[in-house]
Amino acid sequence: MGRVLIIGAGGVATVAAHKVVKNADVFSDIMIASRTQSKCDDIVRAIGNPKIKTARVDADNIDELVRLFDEFRPDLVMNLALPYQDLTIMEACLRHGCSYLDTANYEPKDEAHFEYSWQWAYKERFEAAGLTAILGCGFDPGVTSIFTAYAAKHYFDEIQYLDIVDCNAGDHHKAFATNFNPEINIREITQKGLFWEDGQWRETEPLEIHKTLNYPNIGPKESYLLHHEELESLVKNYPTIRRARFWMTFGQEYLTHLRVIQNIGMASIKPINYNGMEIVPLQFLKAVLPNPQELGENYEGETSIGCRIRGLKDGKEQTYYIYNNCSHQAAYEETGMQGVSYTTGVPACIGARLFMLGEWKRPGVWNVEEFDPDNFMAELNKQGLPWHEIFNQDLEL
Amino acid sequence: MGRVLIIGAGGVATVAAHKVVKNADVFSDIMIASRTQSKCDDIVRAIGNPKIKTARVDADNIDELVRLFDEFRPDLVMNLALPYQDLTIMEACLRHGCSYLDTANYEPKDEAHFEYSWQWAYKERFEAAGLTAILGCGFDPGVTSIFTAYAAKHYFDEIQYLDIVDCNAGDHHKAFATNFNPEINIREITQKGLFWEDGQWRETEPLEIHKTLNYPNIGPKESYLLHHEELESLVKNYPTIRRARFWMTFGQEYLTHLRVIQNIGMASIKPINYNGMEIVPLQFLKAVLPNPQELGENYEGETSIGCRIRGLKDGKEQTYYIYNNCSHQAAYEETGMQGVSYTTGVPACIGARLFMLGEWKRPGVWNVEEFDPDNFMAELNKQGLPWHEIFNQDLEL
Repeated sequence: MGRVLIIGAGGVATVAAHKVVKNADVFSDIMIASRTQSKCDDIVRAIGNPKIKTARVDADNIDELVRLFDEFRPDLVMNLALPYQDLTIMEACLRHGCSYLDTANYEPKDEAHFEYSWQWAYKERFEAAGLTAILGCGFDPGVTSIFTAYAAKHYFDEIQYLDIVDCNAGDHHKAFATNFNPEINIREITQKGLFWEDGQWRETEPLEIHKTLNYPNIGPKESYLLHHEELESLVKNYPTIRRARFWMTFGQEYLTHLRVIQNIGMASIKPINYNGMEIVPLQFLKAVLPNPQELGENYEGETSIGCRIRGLKDGKEQTYYIYNNCSHQAAYEETGMQGVSYTTGVPACIGARLFMLGEWKRPGVWNVEEFDPDNFMAELNKQGLPWHEIFNQDLEL
Repeated sequence: MGRVLIIGAGGVATVAAHKVVKNADVFSDIMIASRTQSKCDDIVRAIGNPKIKTARVDADNIDELVRLFDEFRPDLVMNLALPYQDLTIMEACLRHGCSYLDTANYEPKDEAHFEYSWQWAYKERFEAAGLTAILGCGFDPGVTSIFTAYAAKHYFDEIQYLDIVDCNAGDHHKAFATNFNPEINIREITQKGLFWEDGQWRETEPLEIHKTLNYPNIGPKESYLLHHEELESLVKNYPTIRRARFWMTFGQEYLTHLRVIQNIGMASIKPINYNGMEIVPLQFLKAVLPNPQELGENYEGETSIGCRIRGLKDGKEQTYYIYNNCSHQAAYEETGMQGVSYTTGVPACIGARLFMLGEWKRPGVWNVEEFDPDNFMAELNKQGLPWHEIFNQDLEL
């Protein structure tokens, strides 16, 4: 039993809060804190559990964070705010003396640059303090990394080829909307592609490489090679991997919108002077676009995210495809949020559960594939994200 | 000889200032005033005539305008600022006692709504004060209205069908940019279409009606039916007109960009709350998009704007096509501005010239087709906008 503090009040935090409440056997006290306390209060009201505390905190401000931690005394802080704030929250955890979990790696605000090095640099300090930091415990990164660890533990002596495939075949009936924070989404898609091959990173132009992939229960969808942060730790932790790639589906209309958003300068993260104020176009666009949290109600269809692996077992080549499909409607009915928030928030809760149980408690800074995957995999099936396996299908890897 | 005050420091004002200086036989004293005085100083520096005065004025503020007019004592104020400011400037002209000229009709800021009624309402006050107000003296409205008046005077007893056709076949080598103030441009295009037929206005969905039209020296271009303000006064002044339409060309890419800009909410003129400030998305977009004044340097190709008319002369049906083609490069070489600014600024200067000469001086509020067109037409040929006529071509009218 332990005390958990959730930072953030967006879609992912909402889902995680719903799930944390359902795991009352391990979470004794719960607090939700964000820049706008009323949003935290809304979550508590939606869940209908008045025992959850709320607070206002500016996650950019280390002193404020430490004051809040000193007051609430969490065992674990779940950082479900923006990835810009990973470092300030990690810093505050060290100062107060509590453990840390997040779902997306740090990136600086003024540069689209996804890299784990900033957070890995905290390894020795967390070790010395006897505290745990669990990085990237959403779906991708998170479940995809754990799928890989599970495959490595049970089905392969040597993983050689890894494709992480992320399909959202949902329809939100809006002309254009992003499925999570539009600022982060657009930054991710407009940067150059990156994949691992033969011992080195290979760069591509943004969305340069794409092909049609078949997704279970969905069918063929055009899929685009992106850089995605979990590749960075997976190729380090599984050095037999010859090639690792990440693919995400986009519709033609989505890409047209994205192209125009870039052409007109609204994807820019460089502030412009507007009537004497410095405003970042992409942040202004975020304020104009539909709030991803409000897409849930009429969102139809499902997501399908998984790992396609080829490698050796007992000297024989085999392929393995492990995936979860998540229905936007089912997610909405349970938590009021759509599938993209759901698939990120549920794994964060499971990671926190395993931490509280002591299974994922280990001084240092860790990516999730460095823990034992078995109980996490069992919890996925129980907590709303059941997974499926296909052996030795032709995966075009 | 008279004193002229130009309000505005954008592309059109820059062109008009260049031309006013070249008409030194009628303009004795020149001042350029705008919200940002340094922009006026830049124009004076570009022209290289230090006798032009400059001033700072907020054209939304009638008192400030009147103070400036009292000081400079203009005979004519050329309003080349935004159409939002037509009424404040007209009001200030009445208070000080000077005449008025503009190139685009008033519209309220919070509503895309082009209509002359607001300005026509000033008719009796200008009459009583013995002052002249010349409305819509750019190219369209302006030259297109004068083309129509010229056709009515010389070639038709009865104009029955009128198509105003506006083609910009230029290439500015930018992914997306508007040719004049993007805020006004996007407001104009995203509103419903409107045309006159059989004694009434007929409304269309935005860009609903389009067809391929052939433009001289350019070729076929897809052209879209828009509402355009000159139709409003032309059908009133030429009541024999059975159908009057306005067509403008747009490329597929331009329309795709426009569609996305609307889909993502950036064409909205309703303010949103951004970090505690009220910001109009379209105005923010304007600040992000390329400044139309800076398109000139690499702008290739030409514009072609004209009137296609069918009607009766001596009981016989005939057609008449009158147009001007304007080269972006030639406009840029002469004034530092591209063709769209040039074709608007030159007619404003000619209108001011005819006012100073007394030919277009008449107490009241007038649309340009209500004056005699002949000397204006002669000046167009002399001042950089030569026109051409084609008789009895099949115009598909």
